[in-house]
Formats: sequence, C-alpha cells, structure tokens
Amino acid sequence: MPGEAKPLLRALRGEAVWPPPLWLMRQAGRYLPEYRAVRAQVADFMTLCTSPALAAELTLQPIRRFGFDAAILFSDILVLPWALGRELTFREGVGPVLPPLRTGAEVMALDSTRLADAIAPVEQAVREVRLSLAREAFDRTALIGFAGAPFTVACYMVEGGGSRDFAATRTMAYREPALFSGLIDRLTEATIAYLAVQIDVGVEVVMLFDTWAGILPPAQFRSYVERPTREIVAALRNRYPDVPVIGFPRLAGVLLGEYAADTKVQAVGMDTATAPAEAMKCVPATVTLQGNLDPLAVVAGGAAMRAETDGILHVMRGRPFVFNLGHGIVPQTPPEHVAELVRIVRAG
Amino acid sequence: MPGEAKPLLRALRGEAVWPPPLWLMRQAGRYLPEYRAVRAQVADFMTLCTSPALAAELTLQPIRRFGFDAAILFSDILVLPWALGRELTFREGVGPVLPPLRTGAEVMALDSTRLADAIAPVEQAVREVRLSLAREAFDRTALIGFAGAPFTVACYMVEGGGSRDFAATRTMAYREPALFSGLIDRLTEATIAYLAVQIDVGVEVVMLFDTWAGILPPAQFRSYVERPTREIVAALRNRYPDVPVIGFPRLAGVLLGEYAADTKVQAVGMDTATAPAEAMKCVPATVTLQGNLDPLAVVAGGAAMRAETDGILHVMRGRPFVFNLGHGIVPQTPPEHVAELVRIVRAG
Repeated sequence: MPGEAKPLLRALRGEAVWPPPLWLMRQAGRYLPEYRAVRAQVADFMTLCTSPALAAELTLQPIRRFGFDAAILFSDILVLPWALGRELTFREGVGPVLPPLRTGAEVMALDSTRLADAIAPVEQAVREVRLSLAREAFDRTALIGFAGAPFTVACYMVEGGGSRDFAATRTMAYREPALFSGLIDRLTEATIAYLAVQIDVGVEVVMLFDTWAGILPPAQFRSYVERPTREIVAALRNRYPDVPVIGFPRLAGVLLGEYAADTKVQAVGMDTATAPAEAMKCVPATVTLQGNLDPLAVVAGGAAMRAETDGILHVMRGRPFVFNLGHGIVPQTPPEHVAELVRIVRAG
Repeated sequence: MPGEAKPLLRALRGEAVWPPPLWLMRQAGRYLPEYRAVRAQVADFMTLCTSPALAAELTLQPIRRFGFDAAILFSDILVLPWALGRELTFREGVGPVLPPLRTGAEVMALDSTRLADAIAPVEQAVREVRLSLAREAFDRTALIGFAGAPFTVACYMVEGGGSRDFAATRTMAYREPALFSGLIDRLTEATIAYLAVQIDVGVEVVMLFDTWAGILPPAQFRSYVERPTREIVAALRNRYPDVPVIGFPRLAGVLLGEYAADTKVQAVGMDTATAPAEAMKCVPATVTLQGNLDPLAVVAGGAAMRAETDGILHVMRGRPFVFNLGHGIVPQTPPEHVAELVRIVRAG
C-alpha cells in the first residue's frame, strides 16, 4: 500500500531511513510571503483556523515550496478549548487571550457535546489537504494532525494567555490539586476525541505539543505531562494501532527518557537544548527521535547552519530519526535558508 | 577556625551535613515588607545596588527574619556590564534596559580599567555585611558573593534587556562567532576580577548565575557556558583554593552532569524542573547539589509545600546537599510560608 512507503511513516515505525525524513515545526507561517498574503485577506488569526479552504492552503504552501516529508495541519493548540466553549481571541503583538479559568464550575462547563460541531472546519480542512496532496502528487508527504498536550493547553486556559512562568496555573496545581487534575482529565478526554476525528478523516500521524512541560517539577511532570500523554497514547493505539504518536515535552531535560518509556509514544521531539547524543543514551532505542536544529541557526544560515545540521545528522545516522527543528521556525527566517537546509539534509 | 564550622561551607566541601544548610535564591526581595520599605526610600533599583549601607541592610534582612545559613550579597548580575561602562537602568514593570551591544568596537570599548572604581560600593557593601553578621552574632551564616555567568550577562548586553528567546544574541553567536566569543572572553576576564574583589573583602563562597544557559544547543553550551565557567573556576581556585564556587546553569537538562564534571565547580544548582534522583545519577558524587524546591510551592504553602520539600529531603539525605529553591523566590510569596519552610527543612 502506497502509504507504507512514505519516509516519515517508515521512520516512525522504527526504520533508520536515510537521508532522514524532514519537516519543520511551524513550517506554515509568517516567514513565507505566500502565508502573509493569505493572512492579509482576513481580519483575524482564528479565521484562518476555522476556514477549511484557507487552512488547507496554508498547510500546502511549505510543501509546494520545499517538498517536506510531512504536511502538518494549519491550526492552533487553542482551537480545542475554544471548541469546548472558552472564548479565544488572538491579539496582534500579544498572542492568545482567553478568559482565565479558575473554578470547578468553569471546568464542569467545558462542553464536549459541542466539540463535534465546533471542529467541523478542522475536519473539512484535513479532507481538503488530503485531496490537495493527492492532486498535486505529493506522494511521499505524510499528513500530521496535532493537539496541544493537556498541561500546556491548561496553562493558557488558567492563565488566560501566555506567560513567562504560568504562576496562576502552577499555584492552582499546588493549592487545588483536585480542581487542576479535573481540568487535565477533561482535556485528556477531549484531546482523544479531537485527535480521533482528525485520524478518521485522514491524518496519518498525530503530534502532542507540550511546550511548557519543562516548567514542572518531577512529581507534577509525572502527573500532568506523563500520565495524560500515556492515556492519550493508549486510547488512540487501541482504536488506531497503525497511527504513530509523536510527543514533544519541551524542556523535559533529564526526564526525557522517562517520558519516552512511560508514555509509549512512537517518537519524541528533542528541543533545541537537548544534546542528541545524550537523548540517544536515555531514550529507549525503540523510540524514534525527532529534532532538533536551533531555529536561530536557520536565521543565521551559511556555515553555522551547515555545521549544526551536520552535527545532528552525524549523531543520528543509523537510528530511526526525523529531522526537524528544536522549536518552531521564527518569522525572521529567510526562506532561502530553509531551501538550503533541505538540500543539506537530503544530501544526508 | 570558626569559619570551618559553618554548615554551608562544610556541605560545599563535600560533607553530608544534616539537616542540610538552607538559603533561598532572591531571599532579599519584594516579598519582604522590610525590603519594600527600604526600596520606597530610593528612586531607582540601581541606587540600592550602589549604596553600601542599603545593600548591606537588604542582605541582612532575611537572615534576621529566618536565620538562613547563607547571606547572599544584595546586588544584580548587570552591575558588572554597568561597571564596564554600559549604561543600565531598571524600568518598573519592564526590567533592565541597556543599549544593545552589536559591534566589535563596542566590545573593545568595555573598559576594565574603570572596574575597580565602579565596584567600590559593592566592595564596601561586602565589608559592611561581614561586620553586621559578626555584630549580630550570625555565626553559622556564610556570605555568598556572585556574578552572572558570561553567557547570561552577554544575553542582556546584546539584546539590550530581557527577552523570551534572546534571538539577537543567539543570531550573533551563529553569524559572528568571533565577535560573540570576544565578548564572552572579555566578560570571563572581568568576572574573574570582579569575584576576586568580592573574595578579597570577605565573601566565603561565590555563585555563578547562568539563567539562560538552557536555551543553547549543545555545541554552544560547551563554548559559551562550560568553557567560560571552567576558566573562571580555574582562575579563582588558583588564587583562592578554599573558596567554593557554585554553578547554576539553569535548564541545562541532560547536560547538567557534563557541566558539573567539566567546569569543576564545587556545587551545582538544580533548577525546578530537574529531578533530584536523576541529578544524583548524572552529577559526579564529589560535587555538592543545591536546590530545588519550586518557588510556586512556597507561594502555595501548606501540604503541597511540605510534600515537595519532603520529597527533595528524602532523595538528598546522606549526600552533600544545600537546600534551596529551583529559581528565585517570587514577590507574591507569603513570608510566613518561608518561615514554615525553614522549620520543615531544619527538622530534616
């Protein structure tokens, strides 16, 4: 079956594909002039996420330009709380803004009965991306769906937006553990349902972004990062045994190996700070590694980008591996540096 | 000699002192009403750092209230670039602001000849703290001096203040490695001179704060975190063999063990995210560990703070260890929670 031959799927099933499959976190984004042109057509960011044709177009843009081995659905991790009934706006220069969630009543009011209707545009976007990938003959490109992991989504919901230390969220986790666990549980269930819908309409891989996992001390990392991830992986594996899950517990540090072993994800994303050689020691050999070029090395380009890339390729050769960045691509990245990166990685 | 008996010095020399010596990062700060009273007397934060009597008073405040095993000189890591001739202001609600440093000429203009005069107030503050500690009979309290580690100080200097990702600094490190290395080298020399002055007038331990170490990929972590730290430790050890150095490479993650072994610091600070049990595995047994209670657990207090504290004490019992936080104490911390924390740790 043709899907089996896609390099990303082979690597995620444990094959040391070489040169490694390649995609970049936030590959559809502001660094691309064609993205900015689409963005300029709409008043706000959420319109992009809720318009299937626009989301599909943005998902395809980096594939057309760079021929990546994966397309990742254009969306945002906060679409899920929005679909559960929380207000959400994106303010230019500020980021996401939500009403802070602080009470048990607000957790109970998260409404999973409206999820199916609310995410219909995401479902439709996935269908359109699959059609476009086939129509444009991107036969080697796999489609990745995603969600924020429950802890990271809870951070934005409780805090009411981004933060340096998510103090309100983390104080709640200490002071009101039953309330915070309740929120994590609701998000875990909703995330399973949300990813199942994406898989049902055609995504071939799912990724869980846990951007803020690394701010937790170990006991809470186990309760709020590892446990929900393990539950999501188990539930999805039960229903979709062939769909790999990539976990990205950013800044997990010395707990990266434990996370990989405990959650049973097929692959873990390494952040920029992770030494690939150390990750190889602590992550079980059955788990595919993904990462981790510094996004700022791509901004710099030239000899620095080549040296960093070669360093990662050298360590990872012979291991199941997916080349990626260690964090999302940044807006000031020159697209021609990305093209050069693709050439370097494809040359192996 | 009486200094030998101080619990902090014994722990830093490799003795498993129990209950462990205890102090808290940013223990002199806004969470204390007596700090806010002093702060209200002056127009700006820098006046606190450059007024020996005020800096000494602030250093002593948490010792009087909590009887910590260490006093840490009240100052700021950006006093060093200021002493080398860079302008520095602290804006309420914004943080430090400096003119961004971007050229080789600006690196060359860093003026170490003015260092001695500029840091005279710091010197005088150290003398006053020593006198006060003796006068008030804080015989078990050791005095810690400190500096920012060169990479973290360079981050603020190049960026011109705080940042989420220090993109300008890190792009410079990739694009102009000779320029950035030159800056790190100048700061390394200046840091050695600055800490030597502090030791000459009475600090008994020095600490290097490398708050942003964890944003670097491994090769740059080695060049800009490990190498300068190793040079500072070697230079100080040569002149002051009995003065221990504590290194704090925040978010070093899987590289914490390598940092400890490579730099030859006597102790490493564990950040909040570091699992103490994992740190014990990767950090050489000859290196004292310090840390790492979550500052937000102290905000929460009660059962949560006790459980987290007990967890750390349980793992660290029998090892050379200094109890501390994993990051600085935050302004919303109730002082009575700190008092309770001291009772818990002192009960061992």
